[in-house]
Amino acid sequence: MNPARADIQRIAGYTPGEQPQESGWIKLNTNENPYPPSPRVIAAIKAAADGRLNVYPDPLVTRFRHVVATLLDVDPDGVLPANGSDENLTILLRTFVAPGQLVTYPYPSYILYETLADIQGGRHARLPLRPDWSFDLQAARPLVDASTLTLIPNPNSPSGNLWSGDVIRQLVPPRGVLVLDEAYGDFADASHRGEILLSIVEPKPEAQAKGATRHPSLALQASIGEGGEGKRIVVTRSLSKSYSLAGVRFGFAMADPALVFEMRKVKDSYNCDTLSIAAATAAMEDQEWMEQNARRIRATRARLTQRLTEFGFDVVPSQANFVWATHPSGNHEGIYRELKSRKILVRYMQFPEARGPHTETVDGLRITVGTDEEIDRFLEVLAEVVPP
Amino acid sequence: MNPARADIQRIAGYTPGEQPQESGWIKLNTNENPYPPSPRVIAAIKAAADGRLNVYPDPLVTRFRHVVATLLDVDPDGVLPANGSDENLTILLRTFVAPGQLVTYPYPSYILYETLADIQGGRHARLPLRPDWSFDLQAARPLVDASTLTLIPNPNSPSGNLWSGDVIRQLVPPRGVLVLDEAYGDFADASHRGEILLSIVEPKPEAQAKGATRHPSLALQASIGEGGEGKRIVVTRSLSKSYSLAGVRFGFAMADPALVFEMRKVKDSYNCDTLSIAAATAAMEDQEWMEQNARRIRATRARLTQRLTEFGFDVVPSQANFVWATHPSGNHEGIYRELKSRKILVRYMQFPEARGPHTETVDGLRITVGTDEEIDRFLEVLAEVVPP
Repeated sequence: MNPARADIQRIAGYTPGEQPQESGWIKLNTNENPYPPSPRVIAAIKAAADGRLNVYPDPLVTRFRHVVATLLDVDPDGVLPANGSDENLTILLRTFVAPGQLVTYPYPSYILYETLADIQGGRHARLPLRPDWSFDLQAARPLVDASTLTLIPNPNSPSGNLWSGDVIRQLVPPRGVLVLDEAYGDFADASHRGEILLSIVEPKPEAQAKGATRHPSLALQASIGEGGEGKRIVVTRSLSKSYSLAGVRFGFAMADPALVFEMRKVKDSYNCDTLSIAAATAAMEDQEWMEQNARRIRATRARLTQRLTEFGFDVVPSQANFVWATHPSGNHEGIYRELKSRKILVRYMQFPEARGPHTETVDGLRITVGTDEEIDRFLEVLAEVVPP
Repeated sequence: MNPARADIQRIAGYTPGEQPQESGWIKLNTNENPYPPSPRVIAAIKAAADGRLNVYPDPLVTRFRHVVATLLDVDPDGVLPANGSDENLTILLRTFVAPGQLVTYPYPSYILYETLADIQGGRHARLPLRPDWSFDLQAARPLVDASTLTLIPNPNSPSGNLWSGDVIRQLVPPRGVLVLDEAYGDFADASHRGEILLSIVEPKPEAQAKGATRHPSLALQASIGEGGEGKRIVVTRSLSKSYSLAGVRFGFAMADPALVFEMRKVKDSYNCDTLSIAAATAAMEDQEWMEQNARRIRATRARLTQRLTEFGFDVVPSQANFVWATHPSGNHEGIYRELKSRKILVRYMQFPEARGPHTETVDGLRITVGTDEEIDRFLEVLAEVVPP
């Protein structure tokens, strides 16, 4: 007899991208940043390791929240740090979705959302995307209206496209919560500190007077107290990608403090550890390091997109640290395998129920933007696999 | 409108023990180990910090699981590492408890279990303990029979008593899962590597031949394949207490691989980070460091118990790294406050619905066993507060 819940027995579980533990691979499959974290991060970890690891961390992660609050001009009580942004997604599902309630998200997109809804015993529905990755807003409307929680990654994965604030605004459930998963936000061409939120809500005059048009945070603040939809928007951020800290597991959510108050009840008391708190705080304090790497990645992304196009691929213009490439041959799985046999990992992804530009099923290759050297090697091998 | 689930709005949330962030306090309130972790742990963290933090950790935490498997002679597929033992408790609730199903646990005990059941939308019931901290097994029987998940901390908190395998055996739900929360197991007088489990299940002859009577693990193994109750027992361990790593957040569960298979579906893919994995692995590899500190704490515990008795306290014989003390005056909250005003923190705990030896409500002081110097200072201040 299997004592697990029927909901759990039914699901297969989310399969993370391949993580070979031996060296020699070029990993372009899990959207890691190819550059190391700031030296200030390494120094902060080592200092914390020399500290008092026998005592519990600060359960409220006070100092980190205040650093974020100052940097993004948000209320520190509206910031919820977590053991990776994935933990905040789990907390969001557990806080807002009762059994049988509806969770919606675009498709094709981050498939973890569906697994999380299954684990929570929620119903789920996909908001269909057109072949050009735009929302069919008319088809989405009744689903969004019935939704308790809507999750939108922006930029989206696997496509890398960014939806405008005008579109996002129409996806806020009238009686539910909208999660903007901004894991890749820092890689957008326009410095992405909340333009999206800012376009959703009218900033307060004093925020505009402070010249704060690029602050997400202010937008969030502006939305609070107006009784508007901004009160039901949660923005999640990750330090895995733009801050080069996938190994450290740290993310944070920003929302109306009233929502964060409920989310905090669901988290484990000590969900963030002393070392990751030290690392994350130092990372946020070195914005220049992050911005510099994001600039490099944007430049390499432009070159990668151009070269893939020359190989005959269709490439979605990306605002993230990866590109979504499809080939008229449709032989994506074959290309993936050929690359893997040469120790280059990209992500082959299938979305069986979506209609793509070339076939009834969407499939393709999601290729992380590595260093220039990694991308050169990738293109060299690709030339053997897909003659131009 | 508050969009949080009604279940979440209703609960107050678990309040962790006070964690003053400034120095100068003697902290005897959250059962931390007063001694630092092994120098090998610190070296491992620093080496990992110099490694590749930009890439994701091993989602299966393979090396740590194999170290545990070798040390405790269990199947590595039956080991589930987590971001603190609390995360494994959350995973257990989410894996095995559907809405409305029954969760049971002793009372007075670790009150987090009740909060976790509430968050999951389960029903819960307390297995009443007698004033001498023994189970009323007759009263417990119908509750255990109806239980989906029963959680037993052994040694118990706040009392520090250890229940025998004979008692534990009677608390396995006939159709549910028993969790033995062994967070404090390493502090028991008898080296506590699974004697309890061993006494629940008959060890296989080959395990006995290997002289493995002290291995929990073997007991667990022995229980697997026999179709016995051992297949539905999960043992959880923490590195926070005996390994002096509360700041690092690491724990692990051991169970039949079939149960771990289901639990793994519920966890976040990358729930353990590169730094904590390095720390935890090094800690397990230095058993002598842990054992030496546990021996010191047992010696100090004996002295503390003796002295508290001389002050007129009733002290439960403890097998953990804390003692539960009650005073005939009943003035526990007053003593707690007096100590706190002198920068000594102990835990004042109230269990309003339990009957104690002196009053209708159980309350008392849970005092963590610190260093000899800390306990000397505590006793010095106590003499001012409670004249002998």
